Amino acid sequence: MKRTPLLDSIRSPQDLKRIDVDRLPELAEEIRSFLVEKVSCTGGHLASNLGVVELTIALLRVFDLPEDKVIYDVGHQAYVHKMLTGRSAEFDSLRQKGGISGFPKRSESVYDAFGAGHASTSVSAALGILRAEKLLGGDGHVIAVIGDGAMTGGLCFEALNDAGQSKQPLIVILNDNDMSISYNVGALNGHLNRMRTSRSYRRFKHNTAEFLHNLPRIGQKMFDMALNIKNRIKYFLIPNVLFEELGFTYLGPVDGHDIESLIEVLKRAKRLGDPVIIHAVTKKGKGYSLAEENPEKFHGIGKFDAETGIVRKSAGESNSSVFGKTLTELAAKDSRIVAITAAMPQGTGLDRFRKAFPSRFYDVGIAEEHAVTMAAGMAAAGARPVAAIYSTFLQRAYDELLHDVCLQNLPVVFGIDRAGLVGEDGETHQGVYDIAFLRTLPGMCILSPATQEELAAMIPLALTQTGPVAIRYNRGALMSAQLQTPVEIGKWEEIAPAEEGKIIVLASGRMVKTALSAAEGLPVSVINVRSIKPMDEEMLLRIKRCGKPVFTVEDGILSGGFGEAVKAMIGSEVEVVCFGVGEQPVKHAPVSEQDKLCGMDAESIREKLLEYLEREA
Amino acid sequence: MKRTPLLDSIRSPQDLKRIDVDRLPELAEEIRSFLVEKVSCTGGHLASNLGVVELTIALLRVFDLPEDKVIYDVGHQAYVHKMLTGRSAEFDSLRQKGGISGFPKRSESVYDAFGAGHASTSVSAALGILRAEKLLGGDGHVIAVIGDGAMTGGLCFEALNDAGQSKQPLIVILNDNDMSISYNVGALNGHLNRMRTSRSYRRFKHNTAEFLHNLPRIGQKMFDMALNIKNRIKYFLIPNVLFEELGFTYLGPVDGHDIESLIEVLKRAKRLGDPVIIHAVTKKGKGYSLAEENPEKFHGIGKFDAETGIVRKSAGESNSSVFGKTLTELAAKDSRIVAITAAMPQGTGLDRFRKAFPSRFYDVGIAEEHAVTMAAGMAAAGARPVAAIYSTFLQRAYDELLHDVCLQNLPVVFGIDRAGLVGEDGETHQGVYDIAFLRTLPGMCILSPATQEELAAMIPLALTQTGPVAIRYNRGALMSAQLQTPVEIGKWEEIAPAEEGKIIVLASGRMVKTALSAAEGLPVSVINVRSIKPMDEEMLLRIKRCGKPVFTVEDGILSGGFGEAVKAMIGSEVEVVCFGVGEQPVKHAPVSEQDKLCGMDAESIREKLLEYLEREA
Repeated sequence: MKRTPLLDSIRSPQDLKRIDVDRLPELAEEIRSFLVEKVSCTGGHLASNLGVVELTIALLRVFDLPEDKVIYDVGHQAYVHKMLTGRSAEFDSLRQKGGISGFPKRSESVYDAFGAGHASTSVSAALGILRAEKLLGGDGHVIAVIGDGAMTGGLCFEALNDAGQSKQPLIVILNDNDMSISYNVGALNGHLNRMRTSRSYRRFKHNTAEFLHNLPRIGQKMFDMALNIKNRIKYFLIPNVLFEELGFTYLGPVDGHDIESLIEVLKRAKRLGDPVIIHAVTKKGKGYSLAEENPEKFHGIGKFDAETGIVRKSAGESNSSVFGKTLTELAAKDSRIVAITAAMPQGTGLDRFRKAFPSRFYDVGIAEEHAVTMAAGMAAAGARPVAAIYSTFLQRAYDELLHDVCLQNLPVVFGIDRAGLVGEDGETHQGVYDIAFLRTLPGMCILSPATQEELAAMIPLALTQTGPVAIRYNRGALMSAQLQTPVEIGKWEEIAPAEEGKIIVLASGRMVKTALSAAEGLPVSVINVRSIKPMDEEMLLRIKRCGKPVFTVEDGILSGGFGEAVKAMIGSEVEVVCFGVGEQPVKHAPVSEQDKLCGMDAESIREKLLEYLEREA
Repeated sequence: MKRTPLLDSIRSPQDLKRIDVDRLPELAEEIRSFLVEKVSCTGGHLASNLGVVELTIALLRVFDLPEDKVIYDVGHQAYVHKMLTGRSAEFDSLRQKGGISGFPKRSESVYDAFGAGHASTSVSAALGILRAEKLLGGDGHVIAVIGDGAMTGGLCFEALNDAGQSKQPLIVILNDNDMSISYNVGALNGHLNRMRTSRSYRRFKHNTAEFLHNLPRIGQKMFDMALNIKNRIKYFLIPNVLFEELGFTYLGPVDGHDIESLIEVLKRAKRLGDPVIIHAVTKKGKGYSLAEENPEKFHGIGKFDAETGIVRKSAGESNSSVFGKTLTELAAKDSRIVAITAAMPQGTGLDRFRKAFPSRFYDVGIAEEHAVTMAAGMAAAGARPVAAIYSTFLQRAYDELLHDVCLQNLPVVFGIDRAGLVGEDGETHQGVYDIAFLRTLPGMCILSPATQEELAAMIPLALTQTGPVAIRYNRGALMSAQLQTPVEIGKWEEIAPAEEGKIIVLASGRMVKTALSAAEGLPVSVINVRSIKPMDEEMLLRIKRCGKPVFTVEDGILSGGFGEAVKAMIGSEVEVVCFGVGEQPVKHAPVSEQDKLCGMDAESIREKLLEYLEREA
């Protein structure tokens, strides 16, 4: 392990401020080697954190936390912030059970002003904090740090629109690490940057605004202004006119790896007193060549070898891969099939589809709402859209699912990836709400495969329906087993006939394997709930007639979930015991630990089974 | 009734196309008097429809429906579209039970290409339709018509962002009826308009784009371009650079009441082959002076006198008014209280708050997601934010409620107006999902007043909590009755002790009155479920001990709702019968009719009570 004496000396932002400015690049180096080493052991988000080392240092130098507040959008780039606000000693426990979170959390530190996990929330939150502070007599500065990707989310636009007209001195830092917003920014040099952040530029803008208001009376004036043509054209050339239109002063672009420039521009922003956008150009993975070359791989990564970058892979094919492969095969036979993702082509396994059918593949960026309503439009026009979205992010499209897809009963297929407990990302990313919120949607069919073979079979089945179908599957890999019975909507699979066991366990998705393991060797019938909605009413009737205790096991919340629905259907006739996630949000830890925490691991279920068997005997 | 011979001759868009263009203004006049007469009898959306008479005529003249598709955003401005596509004879039944809907509906007409009700969906839907058509070999045009208000919704931005880069020939019509987007457009005359829609303008833009790409090599060139300075400055001056930045060609502004200009600009747009925005300036309420003077009043209106504009008012104070009044009184005593609305200051009763405390009032526009996350930010900083949002629109902020408010357990108070069945607006506006989706949120407290006095008491109660609280109340007026017991979180009110009746009815909100009426004179105990979550566990325990049948009555869906939760809690011990809204979305009709349809009117409940009493006897 490399020594990191400067970093080690920092226990708080005050310590950071004492370090000589000339030595800050050295500190940045230390932080980078610390990051690579720690994340290689724990897994986590690496590339984005390597990209904001200098920016985070500059922010903590210029502003006074916690009186001033920095809100990190998405939040997975807040590792450096955590290190420099007294938490570097805890990085061995990053994202581990009982350790520090991979995201900012108000409950973890007074320096984390607002929690995050999902994209595009920072400007809204920062504006709210700023408005409240002004109201309550505070005078702290509030800064939102948001990536160019997160800026495509509609929520961010709503917030910028409000912030721009608010005239509040909100500081938004656009952390632009792929130049996607400003393709021609690279052509503008440091001179332009300095010019644009200067007082004379602001005066020029002020004059221009006046000019606009006097427009009907112009004439000669317009020609006089030709003197300013050079500046004017530069202004015109910059796509960031967009921000100016929204009411922000635009400062930048600034080299996001030049600490002194960053400090300078932050100081300017601090003095402005109006909404301001600082455009910082950074490089994902900066300083770790393996990550610079392959930032996608090092975005969110498992444990890896720091020397070679080789990831300690989990064995077997992922569910996402099965999904992508199956859909691509089906698309070869049906030209109406299109695939939609919201910025997750790799994570959802759709990269394969994109390669095979680029013109039928739509990556709409971080914009789940648009993804869903656009899919509804495509279905209305006769295409067969399949939208693959992580469970936790599909939450953002609840209204679009209801209003655009379900009320019109349009045949959109949803591949809900990362459904259920997700492990180390913790509370903000748990995919445990989907069963409950999807159950409220009229006509929405919810399928849940227990094996990868079922997953593969459900996709063509879903594509033959005349209404919406959601297929939910967990992160990682389901077990593999040959299909014994064909997959059908509204049909469950009796792994052992309900009549045989003394207790009947209804399990869905990955919990089928858990249930089988819990029931091993016991006189218990496990039923594979392939179709969560509609339920298998015929089988429920038979189960009711059996009169035996029923256990339900689901990878989701109990409130409004599958188990509650079973209770509502047959709970008056037979005893129903529900296993699933309770009211308390589930913190970061391996999934196996989270299962235990929720009492839905095989051992806990087996214990309860034994208790009931004894009672029945 | 005025005669409308031209309108009467139109049974389909083909008929419209046969009318001499000179006579179209006459047709517009007829449509207006028809609209005022019909809507005065049925109630509905008037001002917005008066504003789009010419635009709708022009669209149906230039495009060939149903091969071409017009998608109306929000949809309440589609009356004229309905009239001209064969439905004028049905306007006596507008929004009535069994009659035509006040919104576009795919099931109602082949000319309604996509349903609507909520704002900001049209561009997504239209882009989806267009992409699907291209994929399937169609060549129809697709047009989205969206108001300037709906454009503040983030979903619309997500869609514009995608559409702009798609290069698809999508036509978006910005129906700008209050100039809020382009404050200085009024200074630009028809010449500018013609210039901007001409080929030379497009060529100019093309050249500019090339210039941008060659920027690093410029020098002398920049000065040569001064020749173009006049055009360039005009381009620069127009705030709609925003749309151009997003990849759209901007056409306009055009007078939205000049049919010939509209036809001309639509024809140009049709030829373009690229994403295009047409900026049409219209006047809400156009042609009906009472509505022109007070467009807010005539936006959505009940039955009124066409001569005087006087609305046949429902007696009594609305719940919204009680909410606004109470909050304003509380705010006078607590300076931390702030109020937030998403474009509904009047509808939510917050106009009173705005007048009293303008600096503590935030109208964020149609942007429910931002409203909720900003409220979370304000709560995090120590303010006491109260967001009043209609139930149906709160759906759009499901993720923000979960991710930003509940996971951080922030004390935001939600006034959920229009909860439950809403009547004539129909499926898209039903506020029946909130109990079910709010129940999934960790730590969210859900209150439901049965009287206006309870509503008034719940607001200060909610403001003393340390976590989020939602208070849901229906459209119109709850009954009035003096508080008999103080309102508490997690406590229900026994109107008659549970032990006394032979059946126990658990009712919430306005259904308490229904339940009391159903139970009148019968040996039945009605309990007022003031707190839906948390439930009154102590009382539930007592109820369970009673062993009598329990009826639950809620103004919301059964799936995942309150009744299901009660079943899950005590359904194994006592029989629980649930009344509420089923899986099928509830169509437009008076609320009393909708209650009957759902079997949750007093008579239906009384019938079931009698049946059970007989059985128990």
